[in-house]
Amino acid sequence: MSIDRKALPQLRPSVTADNNARDIAAARAQATFSVERLANYLYGGKQRRLHRDRILRIVEKDPVFSKSTRYYRSLEEQIAAGLAQSRRLVELRDQHGWNEAEFSQALTLVDDFLPITLHHILIKPLLRTQCTPKQQSRWLKDAEDWRIIGCYAQTELAHGSDLSKLETTATYIRETDEFEINSNSFTGSKWWIGGLGEIATHTILQARLILGGKDYGAHMFMVPIRSLDTHKPFPGITIGNIGPKAFGATNSTNNGFAYFDGYRIPRDNMLAKFAHVSKDGVYVSPPHAKVGYAGMLLLRVSLARDAGWALARAATIAIRYSAVRRQFASAGEEVPVLQYPNVYRRLLPFVAQAHVMLAGTDALAELFSQLNAGLATNDVSLLPEAHATSCCLKSLCTKTAADGIEEARRALGGHGYSAGSGYGAMYGHYVASNTVEGDNFLITQQTARFLLKVLQQANSAEKRSLPASAAYLAHVKTLTTTKCTVERPEDWLCMNVQEQVLTRRAARLAVELATALLQERKPWQALNTECWRLSVAHGHVLLASAMRHRVEEIMQADSVLYPVMKRLSELWFLHTVETHLGDFLEDGSIAPHQVQMLRAQLSTTLSALLPDAVGLVDAFDFPDYVLDSTLGRSDGRAYENLWENALRAPPINSDRNGNLRSLDATPFGYEEYIRPLLKRPARTGAKL
Amino acid sequence: MSIDRKALPQLRPSVTADNNARDIAAARAQATFSVERLANYLYGGKQRRLHRDRILRIVEKDPVFSKSTRYYRSLEEQIAAGLAQSRRLVELRDQHGWNEAEFSQALTLVDDFLPITLHHILIKPLLRTQCTPKQQSRWLKDAEDWRIIGCYAQTELAHGSDLSKLETTATYIRETDEFEINSNSFTGSKWWIGGLGEIATHTILQARLILGGKDYGAHMFMVPIRSLDTHKPFPGITIGNIGPKAFGATNSTNNGFAYFDGYRIPRDNMLAKFAHVSKDGVYVSPPHAKVGYAGMLLLRVSLARDAGWALARAATIAIRYSAVRRQFASAGEEVPVLQYPNVYRRLLPFVAQAHVMLAGTDALAELFSQLNAGLATNDVSLLPEAHATSCCLKSLCTKTAADGIEEARRALGGHGYSAGSGYGAMYGHYVASNTVEGDNFLITQQTARFLLKVLQQANSAEKRSLPASAAYLAHVKTLTTTKCTVERPEDWLCMNVQEQVLTRRAARLAVELATALLQERKPWQALNTECWRLSVAHGHVLLASAMRHRVEEIMQADSVLYPVMKRLSELWFLHTVETHLGDFLEDGSIAPHQVQMLRAQLSTTLSALLPDAVGLVDAFDFPDYVLDSTLGRSDGRAYENLWENALRAPPINSDRNGNLRSLDATPFGYEEYIRPLLKRPARTGAKL
Repeated sequence: MSIDRKALPQLRPSVTADNNARDIAAARAQATFSVERLANYLYGGKQRRLHRDRILRIVEKDPVFSKSTRYYRSLEEQIAAGLAQSRRLVELRDQHGWNEAEFSQALTLVDDFLPITLHHILIKPLLRTQCTPKQQSRWLKDAEDWRIIGCYAQTELAHGSDLSKLETTATYIRETDEFEINSNSFTGSKWWIGGLGEIATHTILQARLILGGKDYGAHMFMVPIRSLDTHKPFPGITIGNIGPKAFGATNSTNNGFAYFDGYRIPRDNMLAKFAHVSKDGVYVSPPHAKVGYAGMLLLRVSLARDAGWALARAATIAIRYSAVRRQFASAGEEVPVLQYPNVYRRLLPFVAQAHVMLAGTDALAELFSQLNAGLATNDVSLLPEAHATSCCLKSLCTKTAADGIEEARRALGGHGYSAGSGYGAMYGHYVASNTVEGDNFLITQQTARFLLKVLQQANSAEKRSLPASAAYLAHVKTLTTTKCTVERPEDWLCMNVQEQVLTRRAARLAVELATALLQERKPWQALNTECWRLSVAHGHVLLASAMRHRVEEIMQADSVLYPVMKRLSELWFLHTVETHLGDFLEDGSIAPHQVQMLRAQLSTTLSALLPDAVGLVDAFDFPDYVLDSTLGRSDGRAYENLWENALRAPPINSDRNGNLRSLDATPFGYEEYIRPLLKRPARTGAKL
Repeated sequence: MSIDRKALPQLRPSVTADNNARDIAAARAQATFSVERLANYLYGGKQRRLHRDRILRIVEKDPVFSKSTRYYRSLEEQIAAGLAQSRRLVELRDQHGWNEAEFSQALTLVDDFLPITLHHILIKPLLRTQCTPKQQSRWLKDAEDWRIIGCYAQTELAHGSDLSKLETTATYIRETDEFEINSNSFTGSKWWIGGLGEIATHTILQARLILGGKDYGAHMFMVPIRSLDTHKPFPGITIGNIGPKAFGATNSTNNGFAYFDGYRIPRDNMLAKFAHVSKDGVYVSPPHAKVGYAGMLLLRVSLARDAGWALARAATIAIRYSAVRRQFASAGEEVPVLQYPNVYRRLLPFVAQAHVMLAGTDALAELFSQLNAGLATNDVSLLPEAHATSCCLKSLCTKTAADGIEEARRALGGHGYSAGSGYGAMYGHYVASNTVEGDNFLITQQTARFLLKVLQQANSAEKRSLPASAAYLAHVKTLTTTKCTVERPEDWLCMNVQEQVLTRRAARLAVELATALLQERKPWQALNTECWRLSVAHGHVLLASAMRHRVEEIMQADSVLYPVMKRLSELWFLHTVETHLGDFLEDGSIAPHQVQMLRAQLSTTLSALLPDAVGLVDAFDFPDYVLDSTLGRSDGRAYENLWENALRAPPINSDRNGNLRSLDATPFGYEEYIRPLLKRPARTGAKL
């Protein structure tokens, strides 16, 4: 399938292309730290990287997972590829005896959103955490062994974010001990459900529970939807695919719809770990009303954790290509564009953001673990903080990463716009994270509500027991009256200054929101934008705090990495203030000369990090197979890759099997389109 | 091909969907101005709209231009569709006797970047303006009559922006009175050239002219590349397609590459209106070194002019859908989300930006006309200002529009991510504008250089003859020492305040750049970011000034439109300051309480415009055929559209001809992928 480099010799060799490999090696050699040790730190040890590489070798050599034709496919072929990869991945699991973690690793390497992805990352966890032991014995083994495949049906055609307004109902029919599922109207159809379109045999359905005419709100039900014998949908269910997605991305997922019309399931199919209905139709409440939101919480944590890696990947391609792309002469010879401030100023902050987001979302994952440990013993005390933090960081991090991917692409000139650069698919795939599992704008209301409660608590006698992540609100008065103390550019690197500036802004916005709500009596819905601003500010506090701990940890664990990590932490802070400058300046706490010092220090910090640029992205250790980028391959040979990539593209240069078309062949489309155009009869239009 | 609405009756009707049409009608009825008259104003009169509609009826009923399968196509099918549409469009031209303007109109309606687009918008104009009469007689009639099709070959594999570094040479061979074209190495191959991949018979080539071993820099040559008999490339030229583009967009264009190896053309094929080479190899210079940049200038003006319409289109879909999408209850009934401040605050500014960009780029087009009128008599005096203004507005407007399209999509929740929303293709197609014809970041250096010259001139005796667009720099000292005078929120609406705030920022940034360059002796390449900031600030001055004139013109021409246009102008200003707040605040000229007043006034202005929201987008008058959006159709029936769109998607719901698959049929992919997955033998992996 690949084009032999020998296809090129008819073309004269290029000095520029020869320089590519030399340039990236030279840029690599400048790193001031051990790339190997940073990579080990990021992956949790050398062993894990080696383990990842073993799975990589299995996946990348398998033709089913070849990426060489991914941009040539029709919608039908995309869907077929997703099904084929699903089948093959489970076969490889059987063959190699992969455990759950290894299967997750393989899924990450395949790097597409498959129709089985949600079964693996959500359905199995929900069966483990939301079912009674008896229910687990009915479904869990089959689910773990891929004898049944589930999907998660929450969103409806006309309702996304508001669970209380779902149209779908599950009405208890006492006579038959069943629930009857109804979509009630076509806008109540489940919609967007990953895997539902074709592969799923079951769904975990969110529906409003109706008992004796009374609405008990959304609950989860395990619903068989397709026959295990024929895979045809059961009577009473209309299922299909919702059609193609934007940017030509993620069509392999087969997001589907389902319309239920009087479909019955046994009463025991309601997931009953926390709430259940007795045979005589009596409702037994859960320990906390929002325990059923666990699925969304899990997915939000997972989305937030992906953000750092997504941005790291975008930065890898951009920095490598910029290290070999020479443009514009300086004293005769053209210079790699990475040397230009307008390039490294745009790209290096992505590396810093990636590290800071990884630190921040690791801390979120730790909080989530503590929550789950508590829930096992019905301790729900961490639920509000975990909920607010996950909304805050999911919103902030997925937006930062999506915007960063696209900004990195645009920093590469024209070639960033080629499919082979890897960015188009990466963005198209990734940006779904900004609207799924709670729209990034809307969910910041949850964070803001939580912070307002903490603020109230801080003003009361309960001051001591504030949640750790928002404890700074205890000092709201000192914070909002202290001015920035920077006197020299390097003062901006002082940890106390950074903490003061970030917490002051968040505290001020919290107070302003409270004032608007409580004193000015503005309605909550009129304050969404203010919620968003507050949540962003709080998110920056969370990220800074987590990164501070990480830098301290590194100082202990591997002090040779300390200087570069410290600098990344500083770059992140300086860049964050610069890009949100209005927010920091509007209260007059930072003076004009201090802004100039911020810019000066940013410039100094960027220059100091520049020699580490390629080393830093190498340390993210993305395999070339995953990057799948003509511009970002580790060997730096961007221009040769672009040529090879062009030559194997059908139908003009090659056929679908990658065989070059002969130059003597009739050009593609000539007889059908081009000859009739150029050789058409003289025109006889009415106007002539 | 379309699904009958009767496919739906098996589903129960929906109150929400019934509300859709009612909701949009209600929102429409709130408009405070005449939508019809604003539309006429925008299109330059009722007659032009009627004329557009006549061409629309021809195009939209032609099956070749049907959009119903556009998201289902493979790369090969996309390329074939581009060729088929090219052929058909020229046939329709013959059939209906379309003139150049009518053909342009049809091309706009087809709404894809076809392989013939550049021939129409660039090659014909270049032949008209850069050729001698003798050369015109050789090529122009064939080009106008589509007997030959050209493309424009400037960019090379390893060189985009810097014409002086092109590798391709045209060396004069005196013995045979020919130029020999050489790419010189594979990185010198022309690359990205629209239409070159398959359809073009000729190219206008940019190559460095070499005479007697001396390099005279880039010039244009008319180069026949494919046989008019067989369409095969001539010996000495290797041509192909560069492969698929990001986001699955614009693959119909067949962007191509060409490698030249000792290919000869007659001396008379050098475009010789301004510069030429005599038979004995003597070079005759043009009146101005940059007259040959006319092609890029023309494209930049054209790209800038598209920006307002692109954003208008994105706003149309978003506002219409938000007017019918009900979410979250307020006193029982769910409310159309457009009523929520966080939605209209994000969407209404796009309408304002669209109008302001249309005003600003119309003014640019006027300047460009004056330049061309001058050039005809060798008057090159407007060239620097036209060049700087086109770089400034191309960069600012195309970035504003691209970011706005994506931001509008994200404001729509999940359905924005469906292909049928129209946004994915719109963004993928549009965002190319940010990197073509001069990368948006890099070209702002041209604007900055121009402004520095004007600043120097302003400090000298030549003060009186400053170019109109930068005349504010004459008052640089007053501007940079005056503080903002706002005392009440409504003071922000005062024209003088607005002008002062915008020009002060631009003037200050110009002075800072001059200081960094001349006093601090920083190298130019270290100041790219500062150039970018200055160019954005200058662009806002240009846009504000053009919009002020437009509002005044409307007061004269059609005073019923005055209030709404004035308010849009105000919204644009308030929103621009808010989104670039750091830039305005960092010099301390605006006080914290003035920022609060700005936000208060923004809120007031937005609320005042809200009733006009749907009317304003209706006035952009995009035909449903062009929008091609499930969410944005003028009838408001978003949820029914989503259903129909899903039902006709292959291969799961329908076949390629739009016929619904029977529910009794074996599900797609069952035998090949799903059964083997679910029914595989028990696993025997080594680890078990």
